[in-house]
Amino acid sequence: MTVGTLFLLPTPLAEGKAFDTLPAATLAAARRIDYFLAEDAKTARAFLKAIAHPRPLQELQIVEIGHQPQAAAADAWLQPVVAGTDAAVVSEAGCPGIADPGAVIVGRAHRLGLQVRPLVGPSSLLLALMASGLNGQAFRFVGYLPHDANALAQRLRDLERDSRGGETQLWIETPYRNERMLEAVLAACTPEAQLTLATELTADSEVVRTRSVAEWKALKPGDRPALHKRPTVFALMAAPRSKRSG
Amino acid sequence: MTVGTLFLLPTPLAEGKAFDTLPAATLAAARRIDYFLAEDAKTARAFLKAIAHPRPLQELQIVEIGHQPQAAAADAWLQPVVAGTDAAVVSEAGCPGIADPGAVIVGRAHRLGLQVRPLVGPSSLLLALMASGLNGQAFRFVGYLPHDANALAQRLRDLERDSRGGETQLWIETPYRNERMLEAVLAACTPEAQLTLATELTADSEVVRTRSVAEWKALKPGDRPALHKRPTVFALMAAPRSKRSG
Repeated sequence: MTVGTLFLLPTPLAEGKAFDTLPAATLAAARRIDYFLAEDAKTARAFLKAIAHPRPLQELQIVEIGHQPQAAAADAWLQPVVAGTDAAVVSEAGCPGIADPGAVIVGRAHRLGLQVRPLVGPSSLLLALMASGLNGQAFRFVGYLPHDANALAQRLRDLERDSRGGETQLWIETPYRNERMLEAVLAACTPEAQLTLATELTADSEVVRTRSVAEWKALKPGDRPALHKRPTVFALMAAPRSKRSG
Repeated sequence: MTVGTLFLLPTPLAEGKAFDTLPAATLAAARRIDYFLAEDAKTARAFLKAIAHPRPLQELQIVEIGHQPQAAAADAWLQPVVAGTDAAVVSEAGCPGIADPGAVIVGRAHRLGLQVRPLVGPSSLLLALMASGLNGQAFRFVGYLPHDANALAQRLRDLERDSRGGETQLWIETPYRNERMLEAVLAACTPEAQLTLATELTADSEVVRTRSVAEWKALKPGDRPALHKRPTVFALMAAPRSKRSG
């Protein structure tokens, strides 16, 4: 008996961009598979409809893995793959297993001896880093930062300190808190630090800007990219030691 | 006068995989552009030929930026973009600005007020992380590790320690040193640590495996994926604190 393969299937970051941002091999794999492990079943169905999956949607099996899948549940969901069926893990947007709960499923797949194949697609973190101009030879993604204002300010100072050796620091925020996050960065970090805002990546409205904290502060709010409720990746890099005054 | 846009143009990781791993919008942008800033001019030309760029190759302008481009040179190369020509930064393989020298050009583009647009394509780091099953909600790419055996062993122990909080540690090696790197990890890290080897990503020969250090050690060399001269991403994650004996 041949075991199946677990594919990691990226989905578009922006509406209407499936054919622009997913390559042919990714679209072909998505259309060949009938069994999906999805962070959110509704968005998975919308995606499979958008790419014109050849089978009627109601004939596809879409298991919703939720936001904190447990190992035992993952093993049960992977049993059809052990028995020879190919499956795909699908994120709500972007690459499964990156800044989402898909990694638990993949970890169990390795333990079960399944073949795991990642497919190419858009990652907001990677696109933000590419377009930031900040160091891509050493970087760190730290997820979400604390909500408490004092804890957040301290964490932002720590991130700037951690980046002094040249490591770019990346994080994300719930989109309705983006403006608050920007204000917190401008208040906590030194004027010389470089801050990238990468907003609505791959959408027609995409904006990526890197400026120093001093330059961001000098802009009138109306000259800043609007961030409220728009998915944004933040990236930070301290000024090189020799250029810092403090 | 309208300034031009600087595109970040990914290229395939594996031979013959341009159409499988680059989406339509990336291919369309590559074919529309006549001015390229390339890490390596020869591989850039081979890529543009492979995707059937509509203009004769000798009519395209391909500037070789080398491995350590300087800011002043970057500003000169970007002058046509300031004057309204679109340009693309092209890596030797994968995403420009990630684990390659392209970020310097992008950083200067932001300073010159140019629009920067990242295009979707394959990244070996991101594909390795997706397929690893290790934590994708916090991760770090540290580039290359030291060559000296003692310094390497110490660095590997440090990386395992740094990952105890749940942060996946990713790095790369010059492909002919891959087997030596694997031996160094198996010697330096604790038996419970999880190690991913992600080899020849997107190629037909792609292999991604995650095993504990103890499991890797127990495999006969012939049962391990062959790594010599095959591009490989390494990823490491310490066992959760509660599961560690030491």
